[in-house]
Amino acid sequence: MTTPELSNVHPAWLAPAALRALGSRRVLVCGEGPLVETVADEVERACARFGGTAIRRLAPSAGGEADADLVLTLTATDRGLGDEGFELARVGGASVVRADRPAGLLYGFFEILRLGGAPAFTDALPVGAQRPALGRRMADHWDNVAVHPVMGQVERGYAGGSIFWRDGRLREDLSRVGAYARLLAACGINAVAVNNVNVHQAEAHLLTDRLDDVRKLAELFRPYGIRVHLSVNFAAPLSLGALPTADPLDPAVRAWWAETTEQVYALIPDFGGYLVKADSEGQPGPFAYGRTHAEGANMLADALAPFGGVVHWRAFVYNHRQDWRDRSTDRARAAHDHFAPLDGAFRDNAILQVKHGPMDFQTREPVSPVIAAMPRTRLAVEVQATQEYTGQQRHVCYLAPQWSEVLGFRPWGEAGASVADVARGQSRDGYPDGDGGGLVVVSNVGDDRFWTGHPLAQANLYAFGRLAWNPAAEPAAILDEWIGLTFPGDGEDDPDPAGPARLRAALHAMMDESWQTYENYTAPLGVGFMVRPNHHYGPDVDGYEYTPWGTYHFADREGIGVDRTSATGTGFASQYPKPWSEVYEALDQCPDELLLFFHHVSYGHRLHSGESVVQHIYDTHFAGAEQAHAIREHWHAVADLDLVPADLRERVDERLDEQVRCAEEWRDQINAYFYRKSGVPDAHRRIIH
Amino acid sequence: MTTPELSNVHPAWLAPAALRALGSRRVLVCGEGPLVETVADEVERACARFGGTAIRRLAPSAGGEADADLVLTLTATDRGLGDEGFELARVGGASVVRADRPAGLLYGFFEILRLGGAPAFTDALPVGAQRPALGRRMADHWDNVAVHPVMGQVERGYAGGSIFWRDGRLREDLSRVGAYARLLAACGINAVAVNNVNVHQAEAHLLTDRLDDVRKLAELFRPYGIRVHLSVNFAAPLSLGALPTADPLDPAVRAWWAETTEQVYALIPDFGGYLVKADSEGQPGPFAYGRTHAEGANMLADALAPFGGVVHWRAFVYNHRQDWRDRSTDRARAAHDHFAPLDGAFRDNAILQVKHGPMDFQTREPVSPVIAAMPRTRLAVEVQATQEYTGQQRHVCYLAPQWSEVLGFRPWGEAGASVADVARGQSRDGYPDGDGGGLVVVSNVGDDRFWTGHPLAQANLYAFGRLAWNPAAEPAAILDEWIGLTFPGDGEDDPDPAGPARLRAALHAMMDESWQTYENYTAPLGVGFMVRPNHHYGPDVDGYEYTPWGTYHFADREGIGVDRTSATGTGFASQYPKPWSEVYEALDQCPDELLLFFHHVSYGHRLHSGESVVQHIYDTHFAGAEQAHAIREHWHAVADLDLVPADLRERVDERLDEQVRCAEEWRDQINAYFYRKSGVPDAHRRIIH
Repeated sequence: MTTPELSNVHPAWLAPAALRALGSRRVLVCGEGPLVETVADEVERACARFGGTAIRRLAPSAGGEADADLVLTLTATDRGLGDEGFELARVGGASVVRADRPAGLLYGFFEILRLGGAPAFTDALPVGAQRPALGRRMADHWDNVAVHPVMGQVERGYAGGSIFWRDGRLREDLSRVGAYARLLAACGINAVAVNNVNVHQAEAHLLTDRLDDVRKLAELFRPYGIRVHLSVNFAAPLSLGALPTADPLDPAVRAWWAETTEQVYALIPDFGGYLVKADSEGQPGPFAYGRTHAEGANMLADALAPFGGVVHWRAFVYNHRQDWRDRSTDRARAAHDHFAPLDGAFRDNAILQVKHGPMDFQTREPVSPVIAAMPRTRLAVEVQATQEYTGQQRHVCYLAPQWSEVLGFRPWGEAGASVADVARGQSRDGYPDGDGGGLVVVSNVGDDRFWTGHPLAQANLYAFGRLAWNPAAEPAAILDEWIGLTFPGDGEDDPDPAGPARLRAALHAMMDESWQTYENYTAPLGVGFMVRPNHHYGPDVDGYEYTPWGTYHFADREGIGVDRTSATGTGFASQYPKPWSEVYEALDQCPDELLLFFHHVSYGHRLHSGESVVQHIYDTHFAGAEQAHAIREHWHAVADLDLVPADLRERVDERLDEQVRCAEEWRDQINAYFYRKSGVPDAHRRIIH
Repeated sequence: MTTPELSNVHPAWLAPAALRALGSRRVLVCGEGPLVETVADEVERACARFGGTAIRRLAPSAGGEADADLVLTLTATDRGLGDEGFELARVGGASVVRADRPAGLLYGFFEILRLGGAPAFTDALPVGAQRPALGRRMADHWDNVAVHPVMGQVERGYAGGSIFWRDGRLREDLSRVGAYARLLAACGINAVAVNNVNVHQAEAHLLTDRLDDVRKLAELFRPYGIRVHLSVNFAAPLSLGALPTADPLDPAVRAWWAETTEQVYALIPDFGGYLVKADSEGQPGPFAYGRTHAEGANMLADALAPFGGVVHWRAFVYNHRQDWRDRSTDRARAAHDHFAPLDGAFRDNAILQVKHGPMDFQTREPVSPVIAAMPRTRLAVEVQATQEYTGQQRHVCYLAPQWSEVLGFRPWGEAGASVADVARGQSRDGYPDGDGGGLVVVSNVGDDRFWTGHPLAQANLYAFGRLAWNPAAEPAAILDEWIGLTFPGDGEDDPDPAGPARLRAALHAMMDESWQTYENYTAPLGVGFMVRPNHHYGPDVDGYEYTPWGTYHFADREGIGVDRTSATGTGFASQYPKPWSEVYEALDQCPDELLLFFHHVSYGHRLHSGESVVQHIYDTHFAGAEQAHAIREHWHAVADLDLVPADLRERVDERLDEQVRCAEEWRDQINAYFYRKSGVPDAHRRIIH
């Protein structure tokens, strides 16, 4: 059932040596059930490799724990660990992982790997119970089954083809899917959507006559506690069911979905549910029938409810045929305008999936006001590991700091709940804690040898899982875990004993602040976009300025920014509860990093930092390009260490060269644009073209 | 041999009724040879249709002309008509077309059609000799054999697929090729290149193992006096010949080309020759071997010479990986820098094919200085009927006025030769008049029902042929011919006798000034580009401003334009002979329409018109959009006439709606851009966004 190691594919954050500490000891696994078998397999393989002893019992026995270094045991704890929690303890000289349910034992096993030899098998073990803050921790794949003429095999994918699909079909060799499931489990992800939210013709059939493809995938994810979800097309009753309508209130349509869903569960009993992008960027939806999005989502929720499934309904609805001349329409407002009035109208098993910001995964945006507007709705927060707007896995951009900031944001002020609390469901009356919509990531994985194109981009997917498990975790600490699991070194046999520490320090220097660095050399002060249209890579300040996409900066010779205040602008600021509606509304209170998202200001306007807007633009862009150089230098200083595989070094080298080139291009284009427009010379007389 | 009428395809400028005047009379055809047969077939078909009498004799007989209304006769005239000329005369009550050679008879036949009933068969016949000014009148097709992943079946094609190729193969049904040949002959074109100058993998094989495809096409063009040319890949000796080099001085390479060419002529005895784009935008060329372009071209010329073939060698060579920060490099200079030093080094059967302007088929550019720089080289001038930068056959843009202006331009001043003279070869010592490189057009034809997407775009291809025959022809008179042949009406049976005159007047009102209209609402004052990157449709002022393509406007808050003077700029102006080098160099002499091509000026700079640059921009853009509206109104006033087919009306309606929409988009984006940058309000307080 479990996965062999793959040759010719990088092991990511499960480097074989990361299992040495465990595999060289005596390890007992107790309990019954498929996921326990997964743990037992892992232990057996590790012990076979590193000379330890794997012991297997179906039930714990009195004296059984005494002669083991580690005991992993399924047992009733009365500690309220739930389905996925576990407890670490020291009993005698042994470390013990206890769980009430099999998935908990699996997560406890991976926690032991993370801790490594020193704390895991000593009295320094961090004893106590752990359970995930969020019950739903999901990875969405924008993978197409058939190659899309414009978007290719993976929409916004920067890591090669899909690990699931190829040229219109399920891949024959699915060994990477098993390995992927193992990686996801190792960082705590428990759900995956296996096809793009834009459901084209071939993909639509996964729901019916190609459902067996989904079953095959589900069988590979199941041993790792991961449920499979499917993106479906709202118009499926027309295209697949030959019905004359897809009206969600039409009885025949409802019957079609009910019957279709029943057949899904007959084949895949633990199927997770549906994911829907409706009435968005050309996808069909309930608007065509004069129905609300709640009515659309509830129809699917009702079909799924008998089987315990959920529908993830995306809130990404806006007018993508906007007239750039019309300054009263504001794309940022759209999701709140559409969905806030529907609060309370969604079924319990309908999850409204909200992008973290009101626009579209920009490097810097405010938190979406929808998150604070729907207390009676299960909300999931969606973030993007695939670096569509953050360097496309050619640039180092560690995103955990951004996500951590989003999750820690408190829309109602310091005394109120955080975004993480909302995703957790804490703020929702009548539901158990942890039963919120959870956290969703758009995956950055493809069939690339390093999984994510840029090897260091692996850390983003890893960090997502860890933040979904514990939103309060420190990004730098998560990165530390990732480094340990990915570059474990050879332990005492290491030819360069200082190597691991040097590499660890270098990777922190490269990655900890890399999001800030990327922000420095790209669009300034929260204004967003300024990317080349369509592919979204590299600078083009006016690229989206006169388009229908609703993504403008309104720069003229006097100033720049979008007035989203209620007093004189689009009123978007008032979609927030207090205090943020007031903070964003007030020019003198609005945080610098979001200034141009909320206000149109003159180039001479002074930031809280004391600098003028235009001088800030120059300064951050010169600094950002220098920081990109520094990132490359940090790497060069450690890239020849033995614990860096040659192929990985080569890949990172090549990407860093591109990052430096592109950062300079951003610096020069942005600075030239604003110098030509403002006429204000750089105070430090650096070269502006 | 000749072509039947095609159902479901618009007849373009050979509407059946255009043959009524001839087909309803007694017509005698005298002479022998394939092209005479073509004429005889035409006459027979027309007479069969319209009740006339076709008489056929192999040789003229004494009394034979007396009882005919029209005599088309191949006979020695001693009038120096050459291969393609003809003479019109009145003998007794008959009109007579005489030619020394069969092609002349064919062109004389089409001249009779053009004249229509009234002058052709009366004493008003314009008697006398006619011969083409330019011997080479060529249409180049940028048609790919295999669909290119980015460029599609026809590169820069706006009229559907290729009439030759489909999905990697020669079409099975080639009936449109015959009809196309007939249309080309009817406007005087005598050469055609059947594949794209960017020669990809599949296309390269046309030269060798897929040569039979070319033979099939040649057989369809031959009855209309048209020779077939082939675009070849300079690296063919490597890819097709398995040689280790394509060095033009390598004996094995030269032998390969000689042998390959011999095989081409064995199959296609009247093959025209090769067309080559070398060392340009990624195509291979002689630079890779340290050879000059003359050495490259001469190698192919030597292979072709024994068979009377020519090589057309494109002068479109520039650095498309330019750094936008580097203001010293100037793409406009490139062709002259590369080729002028090679004057005199090319073989007699090597024709240097030069785009009419130094950039790339912009709506407004100066004439290329290469045209005046190579008196010892056979030069062909290349224009573009496919409307890459002039509205892509969605906008009405009659290009004959532009081409006429280019052909009439006198690089050495009023007393010197014109561009047409250069293309004709008049200015070249030791060659017979008419033996210049000629005129080449990039065809705008595809498998569209109306041939050219926009039905009115047919007029561009027609006008090209007529200007190549007689560069002094008036664009409005040519349009008049095209209208008569395309919308001949039903003669005396016309239900609305005033219809043809009304339609004629409306089409003149729509088309005569349409190039100027298009210029009005697009890039101002010769600065060029400002189009959306890649596809080149619609406005994007900064779309190419920070790219490697060498196409910049350098607008800042003070002014705009490219300084190409010798005094302070790139020195491009000095590539012209006097007086133009001085005219372009001097700010106060440079023509308004090219001001920003040659000078960087402030927005307040006064044009010769008395207006400031920025006010001129506003005024022309408001005017241009209004003119687009007026074009549509002129059409609406006549579109319901019986002589406008319903499908054509529908197509033109739809295109005009798009033109109006797009013209307004151009107006608003250009005006908004310059208002935001200059801060200068419109003197007439019109709406600028």
